[in-house]
Amino acid sequence: MYRHTRELQFTAKPEKPDALFAAKFQELVGGQFGEMTVMMQYLFQGWNCRVPGKYKDMIMDIGTEEISHVEMLTVMQARLLEGAPGETTAKAVAANPALAAVLGGQNPQHAIVSGGGARPTDSLGNPWNAGYIVASGNLLTDFRSNVSAEAQSRLMTSRIANMTDDRGVKDMLAFNLARDTYHQQQWLLGIQMLIDDGFIETQIEQSNGDWENKDAAHVFYTGTDGSRAGEGLWATANSLVDGEPFRAEELRPLTDDQGILPAPDPLQYVTYDGNQGPGKPGNAVGGVAQQAENVVTKVKDAITGDKH
Amino acid sequence: MYRHTRELQFTAKPEKPDALFAAKFQELVGGQFGEMTVMMQYLFQGWNCRVPGKYKDMIMDIGTEEISHVEMLTVMQARLLEGAPGETTAKAVAANPALAAVLGGQNPQHAIVSGGGARPTDSLGNPWNAGYIVASGNLLTDFRSNVSAEAQSRLMTSRIANMTDDRGVKDMLAFNLARDTYHQQQWLLGIQMLIDDGFIETQIEQSNGDWENKDAAHVFYTGTDGSRAGEGLWATANSLVDGEPFRAEELRPLTDDQGILPAPDPLQYVTYDGNQGPGKPGNAVGGVAQQAENVVTKVKDAITGDKH
Amino acid sequence: MYRHTRELQFTAKPEKPDALFAAKFQELVGGQFGEMTVMMQYLFQGWNCRVPGKYKDMIMDIGTEEISHVEMLTVMQARLLEGAPGETTAKAVAANPALAAVLGGQNPQHAIVSGGGARPTDSLGNPWNAGYIVASGNLLTDFRSNVSAEAQSRLMTSRIANMTDDRGVKDMLAFNLARDTYHQQQWLLGIQMLIDDGFIETQIEQSNGDWENKDAAHVFYTGTDGSRAGEGLWATANSLVDGEPFRAEELRPLTDDQGILPAPDPLQYVTYDGNQGPGKPGNAVGGVAQQAENVVTKVKDAITGDKH
Amino acid sequence: MYRHTRELQFTAKPEKPDALFAAKFQELVGGQFGEMTVMMQYLFQGWNCRVPGKYKDMIMDIGTEEISHVEMLTVMQARLLEGAPGETTAKAVAANPALAAVLGGQNPQHAIVSGGGARPTDSLGNPWNAGYIVASGNLLTDFRSNVSAEAQSRLMTSRIANMTDDRGVKDMLAFNLARDTYHQQQWLLGIQMLIDDGFIETQIEQSNGDWENKDAAHVFYTGTDGSRAGEGLWATANSLVDGEPFRAEELRPLTDDQGILPAPDPLQYVTYDGNQGPGKPGNAVGGVAQQAENVVTKVKDAITGDKH
Amino acid sequence: MYRHTRELQFTAKPEKPDALFAAKFQELVGGQFGEMTVMMQYLFQGWNCRVPGKYKDMIMDIGTEEISHVEMLTVMQARLLEGAPGETTAKAVAANPALAAVLGGQNPQHAIVSGGGARPTDSLGNPWNAGYIVASGNLLTDFRSNVSAEAQSRLMTSRIANMTDDRGVKDMLAFNLARDTYHQQQWLLGIQMLIDDGFIETQIEQSNGDWENKDAAHVFYTGTDGSRAGEGLWATANSLVDGEPFRAEELRPLTDDQGILPAPDPLQYVTYDGNQGPGKPGNAVGGVAQQAENVVTKVKDAITGDKH
Amino acid sequence: MYRHTRELQFTAKPEKPDALFAAKFQELVGGQFGEMTVMMQYLFQGWNCRVPGKYKDMIMDIGTEEISHVEMLTVMQARLLEGAPGETTAKAVAANPALAAVLGGQNPQHAIVSGGGARPTDSLGNPWNAGYIVASGNLLTDFRSNVSAEAQSRLMTSRIANMTDDRGVKDMLAFNLARDTYHQQQWLLGIQMLIDDGFIETQIEQSNGDWENKDAAHVFYTGTDGSRAGEGLWATANSLVDGEPFRAEELRPLTDDQGILPAPDPLQYVTYDGNQGPGKPGNAVGGVAQQAENVVTKVKDAITGDKH
Repeated sequence: MYRHTRELQFTAKPEKPDALFAAKFQELVGGQFGEMTVMMQYLFQGWNCRVPGKYKDMIMDIGTEEISHVEMLTVMQARLLEGAPGETTAKAVAANPALAAVLGGQNPQHAIVSGGGARPTDSLGNPWNAGYIVASGNLLTDFRSNVSAEAQSRLMTSRIANMTDDRGVKDMLAFNLARDTYHQQQWLLGIQMLIDDGFIETQIEQSNGDWENKDAAHVFYTGTDGSRAGEGLWATANSLVDGEPFRAEELRPLTDDQGILPAPDPLQYVTYDGNQGPGKPGNAVGGVAQQAENVVTKVKDAITGDKH
Repeated sequence: MYRHTRELQFTAKPEKPDALFAAKFQELVGGQFGEMTVMMQYLFQGWNCRVPGKYKDMIMDIGTEEISHVEMLTVMQARLLEGAPGETTAKAVAANPALAAVLGGQNPQHAIVSGGGARPTDSLGNPWNAGYIVASGNLLTDFRSNVSAEAQSRLMTSRIANMTDDRGVKDMLAFNLARDTYHQQQWLLGIQMLIDDGFIETQIEQSNGDWENKDAAHVFYTGTDGSRAGEGLWATANSLVDGEPFRAEELRPLTDDQGILPAPDPLQYVTYDGNQGPGKPGNAVGGVAQQAENVVTKVKDAITGDKH
Repeated sequence: MYRHTRELQFTAKPEKPDALFAAKFQELVGGQFGEMTVMMQYLFQGWNCRVPGKYKDMIMDIGTEEISHVEMLTVMQARLLEGAPGETTAKAVAANPALAAVLGGQNPQHAIVSGGGARPTDSLGNPWNAGYIVASGNLLTDFRSNVSAEAQSRLMTSRIANMTDDRGVKDMLAFNLARDTYHQQQWLLGIQMLIDDGFIETQIEQSNGDWENKDAAHVFYTGTDGSRAGEGLWATANSLVDGEPFRAEELRPLTDDQGILPAPDPLQYVTYDGNQGPGKPGNAVGGVAQQAENVVTKVKDAITGDKH
Repeated sequence: MYRHTRELQFTAKPEKPDALFAAKFQELVGGQFGEMTVMMQYLFQGWNCRVPGKYKDMIMDIGTEEISHVEMLTVMQARLLEGAPGETTAKAVAANPALAAVLGGQNPQHAIVSGGGARPTDSLGNPWNAGYIVASGNLLTDFRSNVSAEAQSRLMTSRIANMTDDRGVKDMLAFNLARDTYHQQQWLLGIQMLIDDGFIETQIEQSNGDWENKDAAHVFYTGTDGSRAGEGLWATANSLVDGEPFRAEELRPLTDDQGILPAPDPLQYVTYDGNQGPGKPGNAVGGVAQQAENVVTKVKDAITGDKH
Repeated sequence: MYRHTRELQFTAKPEKPDALFAAKFQELVGGQFGEMTVMMQYLFQGWNCRVPGKYKDMIMDIGTEEISHVEMLTVMQARLLEGAPGETTAKAVAANPALAAVLGGQNPQHAIVSGGGARPTDSLGNPWNAGYIVASGNLLTDFRSNVSAEAQSRLMTSRIANMTDDRGVKDMLAFNLARDTYHQQQWLLGIQMLIDDGFIETQIEQSNGDWENKDAAHVFYTGTDGSRAGEGLWATANSLVDGEPFRAEELRPLTDDQGILPAPDPLQYVTYDGNQGPGKPGNAVGGVAQQAENVVTKVKDAITGDKH
Repeated sequence: MYRHTRELQFTAKPEKPDALFAAKFQELVGGQFGEMTVMMQYLFQGWNCRVPGKYKDMIMDIGTEEISHVEMLTVMQARLLEGAPGETTAKAVAANPALAAVLGGQNPQHAIVSGGGARPTDSLGNPWNAGYIVASGNLLTDFRSNVSAEAQSRLMTSRIANMTDDRGVKDMLAFNLARDTYHQQQWLLGIQMLIDDGFIETQIEQSNGDWENKDAAHVFYTGTDGSRAGEGLWATANSLVDGEPFRAEELRPLTDDQGILPAPDPLQYVTYDGNQGPGKPGNAVGGVAQQAENVVTKVKDAITGDKH
């Protein structure tokens, strides 16, 4: 269960309104790697976490902190959009018309839809969607996604921080950048701890590793003419899993299978030249009643023990 | 530029058609972590890569290989959907009606839309979209996203592999699992190589690190009553960046800022009680002509040197 | 069945082209609360309406009117984009460069995709999608959604109307605003009529109300430290359903259930510490054939009367 | 800022796993009117609310409660998916094969993607997206959307509750139904309070009401042959705004404007027969350099006082 | 403006309810090539059409007819879902359990969301979206899209028609199939008429054809080893535009440009090895005020005539 | 399987950076009819093609070429965004402030997300999605979609080409325009070849043509008052299928079916007035266990031969 405190986690006061900057700032709210993404990703991972104790608590803790981050960002947005912020911006642009081309205009939905508040979208207005997040139940793979999300998120934050001189904005972003620095390490150390606690053997996801194609697990395939990729550690180091050496090979077919496709169901009108024999009309034909008629004998056979 | 060879990279022949398995198999084609995702992610990262030589070549090489993987998967799909595969499936289900509940039905779009071919969607029919991928130009953050994508992708592949006994399917998936094992390491070693080559100092994204909030980069905040998260390495180890110790603290506001919002533009009809004074009607009022009238003096002032 | 008349429902002639205003105007065509939304929402509600007579006719009538509204808006868009409207706009901006920052630029898809015609998108280019609408078959809940849609739609229209001085645009929007004023009331009176006609007892959706948790239907939970929300009617009035008083209470857990999750299927590789006992490998294992083998006895038992 | 308590708000324990019911239950988690929708809608409305005190606190309170509701639902989902729930379900289906057709199969992404945990999607796998929510800054229109969301949400909950006999599920849903009953009233009473507090005059959104088309605000247009819609209160009552009577009229054009479109820019290759004279090639022609050449005189004229 | 008639365009009465068929039938309502697509595509094309008379009238006519088609389909859906259609279906499946696997289950949103009515989605629940349609203003290209949409739509209809024996459904689909047969020809004849009327010279879109790369307009490039594609008319016929012969050539680079990318802005932290010289920090740096400071001299120079 | 060559297919060098043009250029990369669309459409059609030899090879060849086209476009994008391209643009705009209004601003995601590289989106930031493409397995309908895609794509390319004077950009677009000219013909000739090879009889999709409604296949319905659409070839020519004459008729109901809907399941709380008798509570009631109880006798009847 969750509770709320009126105070923000960190001050979110810009020196002055700036509608053009607010338009870009949306990327940090509802972008692919904005704070809504990490908030929802950690909440779902925490709720789905099966290991009570430090792991579940840790994910729940950071999920809770991230709700507070989205809150801070939305307050900052509304303050950047104070009153009629276009007026403020217009003064600066009047002194420098070239700025308009560099910076672009306001986000019209800030005026039309949200009434000067933050929007749950990215900087180009794409609504946030849950296709950005993952919660697989496997802590190794999820921690990998999390360190990735923190690294990308920090990079976006850093690029946006470079677009303003506003001390209030920069102070808050200095806090956010630091959290992203810390959180990257948190997830990497989480993977180390999964190993220390015996949940996994290596930092590589290896389920069903006993029957995977061992040879294919040690080759870098070069599919580009003149590729120099073979010079990298990925082709010259030893496997982090079994210590066997990696090697580079030219990408080539490992089969003579040309992907010739089988005959289609003729009732689907797929263009076909017959080289695999005639298709079988079947499940696409007839409604419920007719199909019952057609296959009822199979049901009886099955029950009476005639296995196919 | 790209070229094509008729042979597949690896054999893609199931022992027999299985429409129900084909429905699930779609997750590997067009799911969030399906092969279309890594194919498009690596292609865009490769095309946008600024470092000629082994890095660009490596990304281009794996992007090219992944096109071949999507090809293999689509051939497998069409073969799993050979003829009227519902008939085949019906026989097994007739022998065991409970299977229908466990396995679910066919994907209707395999019959209606694709004519027995693979669809560019996940297992529930969501069309693949580019919101799944990232190409930031920063190789550290992108390699992080790549190792995450390979780990998640391998996990999904492994789960799906557990849903079939078909030797043909399993042989191909044994190859795919191995590639995912290898590729996870490839990207981790890529990060190591970025350090060795001097592109980055640590494995942590640290841009603008000189002015981030140093203290906030060393704290784990616990926002859950009774949390045991402080027992983890993330709260007891030293920073991977500067070696300073991490610590756990209770999540609490670091400010007395309650997020009270400023006055809105009255022309946006935002409900407001006036506690921050009256709003400023402004940019929302009037069309192009009227606005020109209103601010033309500011333009002149700006040009004549009257800076605001 | 539908028929068409060449005349529009209302004149849609701007005084002059204005490409920048046209970009914002898209919100009224294909935005979340644009006219495409009410058109499609009412059409689907009308087609699905089960009560012949005044209710179905009323919904069909307004659905038909809304098609005409989308038509009016698209004509207005094409006229705002007459010829090369950027030229016209450029003159005004040349007289006032600050406008560019305030107003933003043209919608590039007006030039590239639609050839100067309306687009089925919002002001930021998001394609209209059916996730905006609802048709539940329950007239009370749908009328609630409709009054909400009309209120939000009217507010957006009003904000956009404030962005232009063009008399032609304002005349048409004066008509649209009035229709939204009227339609809000139409749906509210529709709810009243549902009560008068005996379809519902109160204006509150109450299905399965006989077994809902009565106590929880009368409490406002305050989860914010220092919340003053208890001062509102929602905490001090009596229930509109049963006349019992409302009260405010502090949000607290009503259970000691900490949400500890059960054992997962081990074949899904979910990280787990075993505190709920071992998971059960099951439906994720094996293909159609193997599963048939495993559970066929259950089928036989079921048929022969051995109920589980 | 937010904090978390390990205990759930309400017990979320099903009597037994049921994978088929879990598939439908997703609608309550991440559907158009699922709990993620009200959670995110109220959080954004609360963060953007400009009125300190009981209104902002109330919205923040309910937003906080809704996070707890999503948490409860996700715990319920994971418990419905305990172990290999298909096995449990298979037993019931083995006793009654017809159930498979009625109920459909499992959600494959529960097995493949989330490892037996809740997904942030609806019952057909559509990822939750922010196009479902609104936060306009105008409390009247937002409270209207909220009462609508609660009514629709309650209806869906009620329908889903009818699909199970599980006492544990029903106990939790009895709590949820009650909260939805209460919350519908909360938002209606909130609108009443806005009137009592003087923020609005009537319950109808009326901005710019002074210049809207008065006549059109009092007419029901019948566009269906033989429509009986004129019998409803919406055509026979008096306006809730000004007390003037409503009336029904046949839908007919109020203009002779046939929507004939103006000449397009010839550089966009729009098919056109010239009846409005030649189009104007303009802003679509030439790059930045050429355009600067073409219009530079206008800039000078504007600065030197030659207003257009 | 539009009007409505209570009678449908064609009878939409199934012989009996069939919930499983209704699930598939959704593809015809709201699928990529369902009737909502052609309805919205033709409406937008008609509203945007610049040629008064037979072209605009024709597009408006068919757009109006398509609204009636969506209406017919939604009525059919509601009738297929009469009462509790799962019961009806269950009887057939009880007689033939294998059907469940072949046909899949009901659409849960028919029960949960729409109350037994049609949904504005495809057969897998994807909401219809405007990314399916196009209205370019160019009648040649739009007629091409229309004939394509009719052909794909007819194919889907035909496949679905093969899945039922219900005479009522088949009668309506016999009408729909015929309309799609006719409409394919309508759009092809429309292209012929555009030539006859002198709007275009050939059936090929050729804008800016005067400066396109003539040679590249006559070559088929084979990029597949051993390709036999050169045997086709596309490589052996003469151009439909200028009568010059086509030829096949091996796909090869027509340039030595290896796509080496230029230096990035260093403030975006793009990984780069410097081989193109240093990047230019610029527009990403500094807020509005600082930028005004930096470039104000350029503004003055521009006004005073110092052209760059 | 695919391979890569470092050289591009065609030179992709702009004369100079232009961030504003790059924003529009995105439409050609990831728009509805951008190169990603044809690339993915042809790849899926090729992989799913059942006819070995010239058809499959041809589709594979063009799919391979289109990957190379996306590569060229992304290189062009990165070069248009060289360094800090806003600076370059700012100079031109400083000389002509009106340009800002005409052209709009930069794409903020070029700076924030991609670090100056191409994005997999359209010009307004919508992520590319697979709902843009089709691969039906039927070569006639797919070739129709392909000629449509090439025509629309060429038109967009042509419009964008008109927006720049950059010789480098225009040279590459001259190549792209030519390819689109050629490819339109390629697909039309492909349809001719399908006829020549006996795969289809006419160029019209006619599956199930034997039982379609013959009369409805020859009528143009005019639903617009005063429509002149009857003057077109589509109403005066003969059928391309059977040579019978077309005719125009007024759109009118061909039935007296008013679409009155049947009784709903009472457990779904659909508002209903009872005119079709009582609904049947059924599949929505009760959980798995209870339903098994209810219908088990039907299962037995079915097995023992009691057919319904």
